[in-house]
Amino acid sequence: MKIVLLGSGNVASHLGNILSHSGHSVIEVYNKFDESGNVLAKKLGASFVNNISKVNKNADLYIISVVDDFIEELVANLNIANGIVVHTSGTKKLCVLNKFQNYGVWYPLQTFSKNTELDYSKIPFLLEANNNKNLRLLEDFTKKFSDNIFNINSEKRKLVHVAAVFACNFTNYLFSVSEDILVKNNISFDILKPLIQETVNKAIKNSPKQSQTGPANRKDLSLINEHLKLLEKDKDYQKIYGLLSESIINSKD
Amino acid sequence: MKIVLLGSGNVASHLGNILSHSGHSVIEVYNKFDESGNVLAKKLGASFVNNISKVNKNADLYIISVVDDFIEELVANLNIANGIVVHTSGTKKLCVLNKFQNYGVWYPLQTFSKNTELDYSKIPFLLEANNNKNLRLLEDFTKKFSDNIFNINSEKRKLVHVAAVFACNFTNYLFSVSEDILVKNNISFDILKPLIQETVNKAIKNSPKQSQTGPANRKDLSLINEHLKLLEKDKDYQKIYGLLSESIINSKD
Repeated sequence: MKIVLLGSGNVASHLGNILSHSGHSVIEVYNKFDESGNVLAKKLGASFVNNISKVNKNADLYIISVVDDFIEELVANLNIANGIVVHTSGTKKLCVLNKFQNYGVWYPLQTFSKNTELDYSKIPFLLEANNNKNLRLLEDFTKKFSDNIFNINSEKRKLVHVAAVFACNFTNYLFSVSEDILVKNNISFDILKPLIQETVNKAIKNSPKQSQTGPANRKDLSLINEHLKLLEKDKDYQKIYGLLSESIINSKD
Repeated sequence: MKIVLLGSGNVASHLGNILSHSGHSVIEVYNKFDESGNVLAKKLGASFVNNISKVNKNADLYIISVVDDFIEELVANLNIANGIVVHTSGTKKLCVLNKFQNYGVWYPLQTFSKNTELDYSKIPFLLEANNNKNLRLLEDFTKKFSDNIFNINSEKRKLVHVAAVFACNFTNYLFSVSEDILVKNNISFDILKPLIQETVNKAIKNSPKQSQTGPANRKDLSLINEHLKLLEKDKDYQKIYGLLSESIINSKD
């Protein structure tokens, strides 16, 4: 398969890496801005193009991996011959690609950071396509590097994305709140690491609902109030503590 | 060391287990209510007592591991000879034990659930005592099963406890919110597990502040609004999504 990668941010870079590690050949990288596109193209041994009208017209697969807000404009200006065009967004519908003959969604459900290596075989890929033939094609292609393939339509993919924001982005933010509370008081974040690891082990093994512990879970209102007082100086943290405690208590009714 | 364990809930049971695994001898378990205390005493090969005035007076170490609100009453009624008395609370001050001659705090910073096995050597123990001699004694005793010992005073311990509520109880609740969103839509929670594992790997390895990703981190307001609409039916979840997104955006200013 000859692949063109449109985009060169975090997600695009990791996807490029996955593809080249699994023997696929990215022949071209497109990016409106020179620098990061050029770097990624070199890394992948691909050519680089920064003019959308000059994108190679005869590739087999076009992967659009840019920020959601730029997808429509890119699609409007992309003209190709026969290949299948996919985007990698958790939220954009399949139909934003319906000007093409063959199209689909190829959404990797993972958090990608620069300079972080990943076990690619564990990444879930959420697939969707405009017909069964294209869906099979995307499945066969993806099986070469992932054991974790799900066929999910646009409506459900959006819900998975919201759930992922809670499970990944928001939990990471709570870790960062706890880090901030400790560091401001000259205590190392290391002290919490075994607790964090065990919290996740339990949630993954036994289901999080069954694993809930803590003051709100015991409806220990005097301790909750003491903690709220302690957070007096950090209004944001105090609000978060209050709202999450309330919601945990509500969830037990 | 002859040890008396006062309490027989989750934390007390796990601590009893740790002690008996490391060759210490729990000679007696106290609990006001018969059942769980009796079960734990049998498991540890200890005697059981449900009358505080009959607790063995000649032990070397008394470990009070009951719900915070019951500590003061228990202390008021506990009369012993020479041993050192500790409590295992994250929040109660050292001085709640100052009627005794030798006392301290022995706080295991971990989430304990029934029927969950743990690597005990990784549990951080936060220690405090009324003098250096007793602190050394608690340190030497704890070193036999944990590599993770911290000397931390009552003020700082309380802050560590609040931080732990964010990093453990609240993150687990967010996992449980994401599970609920998925299950209500007939999607398996398994789909999120690789993402959750990677989120934690990154937070532990690179610091959570540096690992933040997601719509709020990119100030992607149109996506945030779309997600808020999607949560219209779950007002609690919608409020949590809004507040955490706002706080993430504030944290970047």
